[in-house]
Amino acid sequence: MGPGRAPTSEPATLPSYAAPVKTGQLTTPALVVQRDLLEANLTTMSDALPGRRLRPHVKAHKCTTLAAPQAELGHSAFTCSTMAEMEGMARAGLGDDLLLANEVVDATRLGALVRAGARVTVAVDSVETIDAAASAGVPEVLIDVNVGLPRCGCPPEDAGRLADHARLRGLVVRGVMGYEGHIVGLEERATRKEMLEMSMELLVAAHQRAGGEVVSAGGTGTYDINHWATEIQAGSYALMDTAYGKLGLPFGQALSVLATVISVSRQWAVADCGLKALGMDHGDPSIEAAVVLFCSDEHVTFVPEHPVRVGDRINVLPAHVDPTVAYHRHLHLLDGDDVVQRWPVDLRGW
Amino acid sequence: MGPGRAPTSEPATLPSYAAPVKTGQLTTPALVVQRDLLEANLTTMSDALPGRRLRPHVKAHKCTTLAAPQAELGHSAFTCSTMAEMEGMARAGLGDDLLLANEVVDATRLGALVRAGARVTVAVDSVETIDAAASAGVPEVLIDVNVGLPRCGCPPEDAGRLADHARLRGLVVRGVMGYEGHIVGLEERATRKEMLEMSMELLVAAHQRAGGEVVSAGGTGTYDINHWATEIQAGSYALMDTAYGKLGLPFGQALSVLATVISVSRQWAVADCGLKALGMDHGDPSIEAAVVLFCSDEHVTFVPEHPVRVGDRINVLPAHVDPTVAYHRHLHLLDGDDVVQRWPVDLRGW
Repeated sequence: MGPGRAPTSEPATLPSYAAPVKTGQLTTPALVVQRDLLEANLTTMSDALPGRRLRPHVKAHKCTTLAAPQAELGHSAFTCSTMAEMEGMARAGLGDDLLLANEVVDATRLGALVRAGARVTVAVDSVETIDAAASAGVPEVLIDVNVGLPRCGCPPEDAGRLADHARLRGLVVRGVMGYEGHIVGLEERATRKEMLEMSMELLVAAHQRAGGEVVSAGGTGTYDINHWATEIQAGSYALMDTAYGKLGLPFGQALSVLATVISVSRQWAVADCGLKALGMDHGDPSIEAAVVLFCSDEHVTFVPEHPVRVGDRINVLPAHVDPTVAYHRHLHLLDGDDVVQRWPVDLRGW
Repeated sequence: MGPGRAPTSEPATLPSYAAPVKTGQLTTPALVVQRDLLEANLTTMSDALPGRRLRPHVKAHKCTTLAAPQAELGHSAFTCSTMAEMEGMARAGLGDDLLLANEVVDATRLGALVRAGARVTVAVDSVETIDAAASAGVPEVLIDVNVGLPRCGCPPEDAGRLADHARLRGLVVRGVMGYEGHIVGLEERATRKEMLEMSMELLVAAHQRAGGEVVSAGGTGTYDINHWATEIQAGSYALMDTAYGKLGLPFGQALSVLATVISVSRQWAVADCGLKALGMDHGDPSIEAAVVLFCSDEHVTFVPEHPVRVGDRINVLPAHVDPTVAYHRHLHLLDGDDVVQRWPVDLRGW
């Protein structure tokens, strides 16, 4: 859990079913979320980054029901990574200020959202993506700047030229965006701080060229050390994963995949949570008091420290929250052994 | 493509739309399948393993529309890995002979399928899973035998005892199953053959103890060298992936993910097919005439050999077909640049 932090904002209290079912009744594999840990994570982050200082990224949970309490805590501006996330958030009444932090070549669907009343901003890093926003009737953009991650974003020295082009096309340049994705996951806090400073110098330089009020950056791994950004795009903090768990952040591992032990041999056991129920890009999941050997499509083979039996339920902790959630239709909110809510993962797909 | 094979069975001809749309109209990332390659793969496999010699595994494509031509080619007995796959296949009228090649602790949903008219067989490797089948009214089982993959399956010497217990509980023991998952992906054919022989000796020994007519095993990587099994559980051959592509099998890479280039810099380009559109357990995908650097949630960064432009469409080849398909709602069947069919990936989830 890392160092504690006394919550001072209104606690994030999530609703309950009238008659809860038990976890034993869930079909496995099932995505489960510990309500107390989720509530603590939401509150801890809101205390650190109140109101518009946080622009929660919905890609980590893909769930409008989970975005709602984030908005209630004062974070009504959201970050999205896909058109489907933008549309789903607007449909759920969470369209006050939606940023698509990604480039699109055809912004038609975003234009439709604008006409339906949502506030839409899109990241641009080229003449083509600026023209796409202008043609589709998306009124506001952020100039996306490469701050060291080899992905999207213009070179800092091009930010002014692109901002000029955007304004020429009638767009409002709200500012700049520069995601330090190569830094947020570094385990050593000192290294993160050092690299972040170099990275954000690039973004600040680009901001001076591009103008606007917004400097959008950051993630769960840099939420409390990125003092250059006006808003932090953190998402993973709500549910967490074992990769971010290594950073000593004050957020608890709220998410796991509930699995059933289906086979036990002398040397190992097997549960029904395979790689189609997990994001595998960060490697194998973890199981408490066990060594995970490998995952197949629908199995995880593990060596438990203490004997397990066929039929036992276990918790599998994903290495990477985002692609794990994207495989599941529902998140199940738990209060101890009670399933108190079932939330649709309604922002999947594209 | 590996060595060619002259098709002799009725060719697998797949239906078309009346008015095809073009691939340029697809929202990306989009799962696309080259119809000619799929047809050739289905026909090539049916020639090698006619009728009941093949029990196609649906976990690789999770699509009843794709299972239908497999059945039409004579393979009306199917392999499944989840309860949802079993239910979906039965619902689609493909329930002639469904094997759940996996252990379940609660077989209630399988019992319901039996009562609805499907023929259901389930893998068992313990007293608990046998009792689960018997209690739920699933009449037929295969004794699942460990043949070297550290996963499910009883030790070969236990197969007789478990078969006796199953018969005592009133179940029909159709035979044995033993999946050589540690062998199917080995790149050297000679090594595959050598290890397969050791592995299948275990299965044959277990079969002698358990009885029954069926010896179910094998996969795409051993489809033509596993002469011990009475039926082969291959699935990947229909769509293929780059991992199986290294084995020199006579199956073409029919599946890819269509993506749009959204950002181009001096050193690299970025397309909108990220790790939420790909199975990542076998590593990064491939792009023709390019080096893939890495994948993020919604991006693949690559270094192209020839210049690409923002807006270009490219094909991303997944390393592992099964978890890739499981992220997508549809497969789009292509004839050149025409999208001739859109097939629901209707066997997802659990």
